[in-house]
Amino acid sequence: MRYAVLGTGIVGRTLAGKLASLGHDVVIGTRDPGATLARTEPDGMGNPPFAQWHADHGQVRLETFEAAAAFGETVVNTTAGERSLDALQAAGAPRLSGKVLIDVANPLDFSAGRPTLDPVNTDSLGERIERAFPDAKVVKTLNTMNCFVMVEPARVAGEHTVFVSGDDTGAKKAVTALLGSFGWPEASVIDLGDITTARGVEMLLPIWLHLYGTLGHGDFNFHIQGARPGG
Amino acid sequence: MRYAVLGTGIVGRTLAGKLASLGHDVVIGTRDPGATLARTEPDGMGNPPFAQWHADHGQVRLETFEAAAAFGETVVNTTAGERSLDALQAAGAPRLSGKVLIDVANPLDFSAGRPTLDPVNTDSLGERIERAFPDAKVVKTLNTMNCFVMVEPARVAGEHTVFVSGDDTGAKKAVTALLGSFGWPEASVIDLGDITTARGVEMLLPIWLHLYGTLGHGDFNFHIQGARPGG
Repeated sequence: MRYAVLGTGIVGRTLAGKLASLGHDVVIGTRDPGATLARTEPDGMGNPPFAQWHADHGQVRLETFEAAAAFGETVVNTTAGERSLDALQAAGAPRLSGKVLIDVANPLDFSAGRPTLDPVNTDSLGERIERAFPDAKVVKTLNTMNCFVMVEPARVAGEHTVFVSGDDTGAKKAVTALLGSFGWPEASVIDLGDITTARGVEMLLPIWLHLYGTLGHGDFNFHIQGARPGG
Repeated sequence: MRYAVLGTGIVGRTLAGKLASLGHDVVIGTRDPGATLARTEPDGMGNPPFAQWHADHGQVRLETFEAAAAFGETVVNTTAGERSLDALQAAGAPRLSGKVLIDVANPLDFSAGRPTLDPVNTDSLGERIERAFPDAKVVKTLNTMNCFVMVEPARVAGEHTVFVSGDDTGAKKAVTALLGSFGWPEASVIDLGDITTARGVEMLLPIWLHLYGTLGHGDFNFHIQGARPGG
């Protein structure tokens, strides 16, 4: 299948690399490909510049948001949550229409030192995206863990959970199958319901960050114990 | 030990009953004991009136918030989050001073149909209580699960997690020991750090409510998989 991964950060790279390794055709979208490739400094998290990653992943093409979205049959939003709507506007509604739009982003604002979520409580980024692009089939998933765990759940020993939220049952089914190809057993996928459940899912991020600080690593995940008989 | 449990709802009853069954001296606090005992209707969740529960738990005395807090060496706040500060003001700072104050409440507002948290993001009920009662040793815990699971973790098969947040290390140690007496293995207790981590813990409630709706029962809990080697 043809995938567009919007966002050139570590999450986008990790998902794009995994999709390519599974034999999919993958294009990464960014605002300005030339500027993305010209960067020579590590990002704020210490990840190497995109060009360095790209040298090892030549099968993944880098394009504008618009060209990437036009190419993808499925679109994955990995951009920083605060900029996701802008990125998707740049991709353009016609290029998202009718497609599964997997939203992996979190609307975290780190500007105040301590992360805050915006929106929170009565809205979510997943819902905002769905309202802005009503012809896309938005599925919120994977945003509750480190990106390396997203594509290799066995990094965390034992059973653990990935949530899906969305209004389109077929799209959630397709995403569940994709998750299966990443290594997620179907029993680990909890369909929380409609896209408004993205509120609760996004609100997991603050405790994720507390745990990351306390544990000192990102190889952990939430497991809902008791969600089904026997586990 | 002498415990004051503030709040006569199902959470307060369940915790008070457990504490009494463990041999502790327990007083439940309420605003107006006469009014609490006079109620003959089930509460909004269908739980029987307090007097009916009390008839089976005669060893637990019912007193005002103030008398209960005066009695308790440890105080447990199980009142509805939106009313907790009022209840604790009624108990009075002098009756809380120097004591471990276990905050089990969640500041959920159901008035809009969908629950919202207030405060959220940049503050928490745990912190508000600590600011209002700086001489109490506030520990936030147990608020992330059904009350029956709080006092009988084996209701949920497998390992699962209870978080503690607070600024007083000795108080968190005492609470961890109390949790042990409820059946929580020490390895299941995750100390997230200072009281500001109550933000992330309280923000678990929306997804807890989604899960309760999806699963149709409350016998589940969060487990942090990968929090320690082997589990």
